[in-house]
Amino acid sequence: MVKVYRSTVLDAPADRVWRVLRDFNGLANWHPSVAMSRIENDHPADKVGCVRNFQLKSGARTREKLLSLSDYDYACTYAILDSPMDLSDYVATLRLLPVTEGNRCFIEWSAEFDCPPQKAAELAETVGVGIFQAGLDALKKRYGQR
Amino acid sequence: MVKVYRSTVLDAPADRVWRVLRDFNGLANWHPSVAMSRIENDHPADKVGCVRNFQLKSGARTREKLLSLSDYDYACTYAILDSPMDLSDYVATLRLLPVTEGNRCFIEWSAEFDCPPQKAAELAETVGVGIFQAGLDALKKRYGQR
Amino acid sequence: MVKVYRSTVLDAPADRVWRVLRDFNGLANWHPSVAMSRIENDHPADKVGCVRNFQLKSGARTREKLLSLSDYDYACTYAILDSPMDLSDYVATLRLLPVTEGNRCFIEWSAEFDCPPQKAAELAETVGVGIFQAGLDALKKRYGQR
Amino acid sequence: MVKVYRSTVLDAPADRVWRVLRDFNGLANWHPSVAMSRIENDHPADKVGCVRNFQLKSGARTREKLLSLSDYDYACTYAILDSPMDLSDYVATLRLLPVTEGNRCFIEWSAEFDCPPQKAAELAETVGVGIFQAGLDALKKRYGQR
Repeated sequence: MVKVYRSTVLDAPADRVWRVLRDFNGLANWHPSVAMSRIENDHPADKVGCVRNFQLKSGARTREKLLSLSDYDYACTYAILDSPMDLSDYVATLRLLPVTEGNRCFIEWSAEFDCPPQKAAELAETVGVGIFQAGLDALKKRYGQR
Repeated sequence: MVKVYRSTVLDAPADRVWRVLRDFNGLANWHPSVAMSRIENDHPADKVGCVRNFQLKSGARTREKLLSLSDYDYACTYAILDSPMDLSDYVATLRLLPVTEGNRCFIEWSAEFDCPPQKAAELAETVGVGIFQAGLDALKKRYGQR
Repeated sequence: MVKVYRSTVLDAPADRVWRVLRDFNGLANWHPSVAMSRIENDHPADKVGCVRNFQLKSGARTREKLLSLSDYDYACTYAILDSPMDLSDYVATLRLLPVTEGNRCFIEWSAEFDCPPQKAAELAETVGVGIFQAGLDALKKRYGQR
Repeated sequence: MVKVYRSTVLDAPADRVWRVLRDFNGLANWHPSVAMSRIENDHPADKVGCVRNFQLKSGARTREKLLSLSDYDYACTYAILDSPMDLSDYVATLRLLPVTEGNRCFIEWSAEFDCPPQKAAELAETVGVGIFQAGLDALKKRYGQR
């Protein structure tokens, strides 16, 4: 199993950032790699169990299921149902914690998944850099970096 | 602040019990004190942020907001918006854990809230016995006790 | 990565069982497979970071490091440093939760580790049945089963 | 019950800061208000259950018990046994999380306690500002602020 973890600090309060991140259909609004997204069956994006179906700017299509959403802990957990990546049992969590000093927030994005051993390093890079770091970098630009 | 905690073991697997408990509008299906329930604004019962509006057999009406739902951890957290009880900042969590031996599950129901000091003992009883234990006892009958 | 999880219910209160389980050097007192155990460097068994060095009745020797101990949550986490098993990065957690109904406790023992793919099923069995279930069964006899 | 929470970001990796913070007897090394500290009965400072007995520069004496220590999660939890503050059931947690971007760490210090209602605001200030923020500010100077 591969474990990937990226975190940073955003120059905005946690509740404000959460309003954007809690939108399971909102990736295209903030992640630089995502072109468009929809929730299957027209479900609300905060209905636990809903599936987002999104297309990357590269054309690749991915389907992910919302496993948990917490407006109490500012966290969500989801699983990949279909993706072009050669992995399985991919479960990821995105979470915010308040940084009271400076009214900022700490954000962490993590995932674990299985894959053929020879693919581990490459997929850790694809997920850690291409998905997580790229997303966090975009959020840092949006909210300012601190 | 008052903290209340009740737990027991049900003679059914966690995933089966979760399908019933995850229905935030389903109290009337299993809790002996609840007569009827609806989700305001016709939202799905698993839309995080939805509000259940239910009536006890005693006639008392309560409104509670779903703060988190996890199909991953079999847990939900909710807050009381309105209730006839003289308390405030009431947040409760209902959670299941698998008991692999015997294919059963452990269930815990907890809450914390503020209230006038002289009401603490009485409200701890109302919540702990009247709401939590009564609900757990009903589930034990439904699934068998072990 | 392999994940192993076993849980059951013991007919004794959590605080009483914890006093036995929190002794990182106490395996030989309750686990049927362990013949003798010592803490290296004569450290106290509740000094986080200490290493237990124990011998199975089979003669196999294992060294494990205490990573965390919580008298607050009745939980401990430890890692294998050396063992005859063909695995790596083995981290395990033993935890108790109170079952208020009947003044009992829920106990869960879990671990994750890496190993050669062809060894996964066999090691999951060795750990899950030979270590965890055997230990839980012994505790159930000691405290009664419910 | 009063809940107090302060957090910030330190310009040093979590494992380096943890080596300092895990020393339950080390307050005098980094907290500006603490003059001297010892562990009662000469126990190691990482023996869960040990008691630190420390004196503030003001002369006030406090005794606190270590309830949990985790080298796995970089967290510790402790309770006040004796202090000059008019409060009870004070339990606090100090925790670090890695900030991978910039190789920094997020630190959070939280506590909950009971007290006479009329003392709540004053004690929240004493704990939140005088103990937590003062400590975090000192750590920020020691490691740099980011």
